[in-house]
Amino acid sequence: MAVRLGNQTMALERNVSVINTATVVGTKESEGPLSPYFDVKMKDAEWGEETWEKTESKMQKEAAKLAMQKAGKQPSDIHCAFAGDLLNQCISSGFSARELGTPFYGLYGACSTMIEGLSLGALAIDGGGMNTAIAVASSHFCTAERQYRNPLEYGGQRPPTAQWTVTGAAAAVLEADKNAPYITHVTSGKVVDFGVIDQNNMGGAMAPAAIDTLCAHFADTGRSPQDYDLILSGDLGKIGREIVINMMNSNGFNMNDNYGDSGCMIYDIEKQDVHAGGSGCGCIAVTVCGYIFEMMKSGKLNDVLILGTGALLSPTSSLQGESVPGIAHAVALSNRPGGER
Amino acid sequence: MAVRLGNQTMALERNVSVINTATVVGTKESEGPLSPYFDVKMKDAEWGEETWEKTESKMQKEAAKLAMQKAGKQPSDIHCAFAGDLLNQCISSGFSARELGTPFYGLYGACSTMIEGLSLGALAIDGGGMNTAIAVASSHFCTAERQYRNPLEYGGQRPPTAQWTVTGAAAAVLEADKNAPYITHVTSGKVVDFGVIDQNNMGGAMAPAAIDTLCAHFADTGRSPQDYDLILSGDLGKIGREIVINMMNSNGFNMNDNYGDSGCMIYDIEKQDVHAGGSGCGCIAVTVCGYIFEMMKSGKLNDVLILGTGALLSPTSSLQGESVPGIAHAVALSNRPGGER
Repeated sequence: MAVRLGNQTMALERNVSVINTATVVGTKESEGPLSPYFDVKMKDAEWGEETWEKTESKMQKEAAKLAMQKAGKQPSDIHCAFAGDLLNQCISSGFSARELGTPFYGLYGACSTMIEGLSLGALAIDGGGMNTAIAVASSHFCTAERQYRNPLEYGGQRPPTAQWTVTGAAAAVLEADKNAPYITHVTSGKVVDFGVIDQNNMGGAMAPAAIDTLCAHFADTGRSPQDYDLILSGDLGKIGREIVINMMNSNGFNMNDNYGDSGCMIYDIEKQDVHAGGSGCGCIAVTVCGYIFEMMKSGKLNDVLILGTGALLSPTSSLQGESVPGIAHAVALSNRPGGER
Repeated sequence: MAVRLGNQTMALERNVSVINTATVVGTKESEGPLSPYFDVKMKDAEWGEETWEKTESKMQKEAAKLAMQKAGKQPSDIHCAFAGDLLNQCISSGFSARELGTPFYGLYGACSTMIEGLSLGALAIDGGGMNTAIAVASSHFCTAERQYRNPLEYGGQRPPTAQWTVTGAAAAVLEADKNAPYITHVTSGKVVDFGVIDQNNMGGAMAPAAIDTLCAHFADTGRSPQDYDLILSGDLGKIGREIVINMMNSNGFNMNDNYGDSGCMIYDIEKQDVHAGGSGCGCIAVTVCGYIFEMMKSGKLNDVLILGTGALLSPTSSLQGESVPGIAHAVALSNRPGGER
């Protein structure tokens, strides 16, 4: 039985192992600093498909298949897939799950979806109902642009606060009682909205949710930022990241030295001309399943707090005058069972 | 610890009680046969809001608040909301969760979302990480029409296979170790696609997924349809319902006498001119949280298998030539702990 800590956190009882992961990325991500950690690097935005939406679905499917293969699993070994994406009606996930053939719970947590999937998969395994699960998420620059903003052909200008949607899909296979790293804690986020109405400032819109969940996690567990080798947020970009550092400092938490944001890590922000950084479900998904997983396997990182961040808007809600609500879900990963020191 | 049965089913160990429910419906649903079982009946499609999308979000929020009130709970008592809807980026749920202030995992299971929420909420409670949860789902005829089909102002013709999206929201509060009814079993569905490409025949598209999950549930548990007082599917309508009865018969399961479909029950199909029946996330949500909950509380039904059915398409996937994948998730409700006889 998981143990409930404080208002939002659960400490898992079983050792829920991340037994293996896989990543598929686009060309821009392949040219970025995390390139060595990715498995499949697409040569173009289409990957042999007729539409970008079909490409994104294929990316999810191939990431999931490769993760299962690396984990020595068949789809029939997987008790459930927890998957989501940004597209209307989450079609990348639905059509990918159709091909995989595992039981499937569809999720929508905007860019926090991968961490929502790890959370719910870990809880289901900890609870005994499942022995294995796979968490999958994706985003694609071209599908996101035409759905959320403008057709690519417009060549629209982007303000400095804008972020670049990561073309990437990742999958992580979870299983009870295998090797490290383990998911040891899950903190469920609340929706937080500070009234940001600028759809081109997602980092600013999501930062308050990130801060809310970080504070809840530290209060619930009695931990401090210094208990982690790294705290990694999803896609706050350089604007959101700065807000988090400053506001956490105001709340008495020093995150100057061990806090990174996937959106700031996945691209060389200056050279690759991505303005405020990366974003999208794929951003934290490929960073965690590529870079973080490898750092933990090699023991260079032993305790990492992963914070998926999402903006729960739609083009319709913005047109109707709504602000941009944010959410952040956290999981703690540790190379020690239960995260014990 | 939940016990895994067969390939897709989990038998819960704790008594996960549905402690109370609430429903909000539109005018057409208020005029239908299940009207006496609904809590809040809107006088029009707007309910004082400027847009139908805002109305739908308000419906979710009010259903959740009323369910908590009837259950004697404050939002701060609820460990997590599991909620979803049909709108792009699930804005009905996201904006409702913003107002409620509970931790929130967003779901997308198309019209199966309520049952996905009950499933994941029950698993989280059974696993000990949560003591309380709320499952919430909604749909609105006007938001669904303009998003999936045509602006209402077109007055488009509907073929006889078309279904009518239910304007309804419902919420169910779950808690460990309280009164009946209990969620005793959860069966996770797979995506099943028989190649139906007619977006106006959702019942036909979803029926194979319903049959797949029903067969899995019976195989996993060793039960037969006769172990239930009622088997209730979500929104197959009269076409999908007939396919299920026939195909289940071919598979050796007699469902002639105790099988109902929410889409066939919520409207007077002939008099209310809804063609093949009701549909939408709200369809099974209000039927279960209104009619079924009351029938179980009064002991008129004691064992019910609830099967949420969803079509995982989007307008984009259809325009790109894709068929309509279906999914079905099941939960068994019983007035006896563990569903023991």
